[in-house]
Amino acid sequence: MIKRTGAYTIAFESRPVIAGWGSVVGKKEAEGPLKNYFDKIIYDSYDGCDTFEQAESMFQGEALEKALERSKTHANEVDCVFAGDLLNQCIGSSFGLMKFGIPYLGQYGACSTMAQSLIMAASAVESGGAKVSACVTSSHFASAERQYRFPLGYGGQRTPTAQWTVTGSGCCIVGAEGSGPFISCATIGRIEDYGIKDASNMGAAMAPAAFSTLKAHFKDTGLGPQDYDLIVTGDLGSLGSRILIDLFHRDGLPFGANYRDCGVMIYDAARQDVHAGGSGCGCGASVLCGYLLRQLHARKLGSLLFCATGALMSPTTSQQGESIPGICHAVVLDVDKG
Amino acid sequence: MIKRTGAYTIAFESRPVIAGWGSVVGKKEAEGPLKNYFDKIIYDSYDGCDTFEQAESMFQGEALEKALERSKTHANEVDCVFAGDLLNQCIGSSFGLMKFGIPYLGQYGACSTMAQSLIMAASAVESGGAKVSACVTSSHFASAERQYRFPLGYGGQRTPTAQWTVTGSGCCIVGAEGSGPFISCATIGRIEDYGIKDASNMGAAMAPAAFSTLKAHFKDTGLGPQDYDLIVTGDLGSLGSRILIDLFHRDGLPFGANYRDCGVMIYDAARQDVHAGGSGCGCGASVLCGYLLRQLHARKLGSLLFCATGALMSPTTSQQGESIPGICHAVVLDVDKG
Repeated sequence: MIKRTGAYTIAFESRPVIAGWGSVVGKKEAEGPLKNYFDKIIYDSYDGCDTFEQAESMFQGEALEKALERSKTHANEVDCVFAGDLLNQCIGSSFGLMKFGIPYLGQYGACSTMAQSLIMAASAVESGGAKVSACVTSSHFASAERQYRFPLGYGGQRTPTAQWTVTGSGCCIVGAEGSGPFISCATIGRIEDYGIKDASNMGAAMAPAAFSTLKAHFKDTGLGPQDYDLIVTGDLGSLGSRILIDLFHRDGLPFGANYRDCGVMIYDAARQDVHAGGSGCGCGASVLCGYLLRQLHARKLGSLLFCATGALMSPTTSQQGESIPGICHAVVLDVDKG
Repeated sequence: MIKRTGAYTIAFESRPVIAGWGSVVGKKEAEGPLKNYFDKIIYDSYDGCDTFEQAESMFQGEALEKALERSKTHANEVDCVFAGDLLNQCIGSSFGLMKFGIPYLGQYGACSTMAQSLIMAASAVESGGAKVSACVTSSHFASAERQYRFPLGYGGQRTPTAQWTVTGSGCCIVGAEGSGPFISCATIGRIEDYGIKDASNMGAAMAPAAFSTLKAHFKDTGLGPQDYDLIVTGDLGSLGSRILIDLFHRDGLPFGANYRDCGVMIYDAARQDVHAGGSGCGCGASVLCGYLLRQLHARKLGSLLFCATGALMSPTTSQQGESIPGICHAVVLDVDKG
């Protein structure tokens, strides 16, 4: 059963297991500091397809295949898959996962989708609804630029606060048995809107949601930042991370010592010209399923609070002058140390 | 607990209750045969807002308010809301539900989203993850036309197979206690693609998914069409419905006697110039939360199999020459007859 432990937090009593994980990234991500942790690197932005959107779909399928392989699971043993991406109507997921024939439940939480999908996959296993479930998300620099900003051929200038959408995908297979990492707890966020309207400053738009969800998590669980080996956000980038730390400091809670952001971790910003860092559904997903789960599996990390943030806007709302609402969901992943 | 009863089907052992429901529709829907069943009719396509997209968001909020009122629940008693719509990045839901401050999990299953969200809401209650949950979906003719086809001012011609996107929203509040209707069982569909490429013929693209999910449901449960008082699809329209009946006949199973489609029910096609009938996330949602739940509540229906179908494409995939994958999720709603 799932147990409510506060207004926003649920505990998974039998702690579902991440039985397998897979990560696939593009060339730029493979030139960053985490290059040795990803399962597969695809140097062609088209991944052999005709369009960037098809390539993104391919990435999702390849991440799922890798996770199935690692967990020694066949696709027809997976009872349902929770998946999403940033493309209009989540076509990265629907076109990428169709061939596997797994019952499909599309999720949309913008860049928070990996945490959301992981919560849904853990809930399905914990409740008995699935023996084995999967979650997958992706993003692709070229498909995201075309959709949210300008086609690449336009050669638009990027502002200093802009982030670079990660070309990558991550997948987890969640089951009931195994030696971990375990999914033990989750905090489901509410939508926060501090009135940021600059679509090239996603970090600032999403940081208040991360602050809100982390505060709710600490209140609901009675734990503090020091109780985790590592706290990561999905893609606040360098600016959003600083805002998050600042919000905690103003609130009087020491925060930052064991905190990192996947968007900062995945690139070497000074060398790779990514401005405020990485972003996208594929950022948190590939860093989680590339670097972080390996650290947990190897017992180099004992507990991780994975917080993925999303900006729930669209180009239409930006054109209509709306502000950018943010959301953040947090998941506790841990291992039993020997 | 949730019990798996086959490859695609789950049973909710304690049968979560639909404690309240709300429906809001526009002027055209109020001129159709179900006009007396909707909670609220909004004659202004803008609903007092500046844009159609803002109006769609308002509809979601109003459907939720109506459902909260009927279930005598305050928004802060709702532990999480599952919601989605057809707009890019699901802005109908995120902007419409933000003000309620309820933990939010965005869902995307195109026009199948109401069934999907209802399954998620029931799963949350059954598993203990939520004491009370909610699900909401919407669509709006003018925002959908602008996004998927042509802006209204263009005056584009509609083909005979085209459907008319319903302007409306429906919401259910799901809890653990009450006299029903109950959510007793659900079948989660997989993505089906029969190669249809005509984006003005959604009925044909989605009918195979309805066929696949219904077949799986009957196989998993050992039940047949005759075991339900009524089987409805969400928005196959007149053509898609005929294709579904035909697929069953070719398969040797009598199907059709107790079958209706919400897209056919909501308009008087001959009089209202809607061609193949209604469609959209708001079609199944408003007919469910307007007409069908009232019939169950009044014991005029004992059991309902609600099957919502979705087309998982986007304008981008259509422009790139892709076919239209479909999906269908089915939910069993029933009441105990006195």
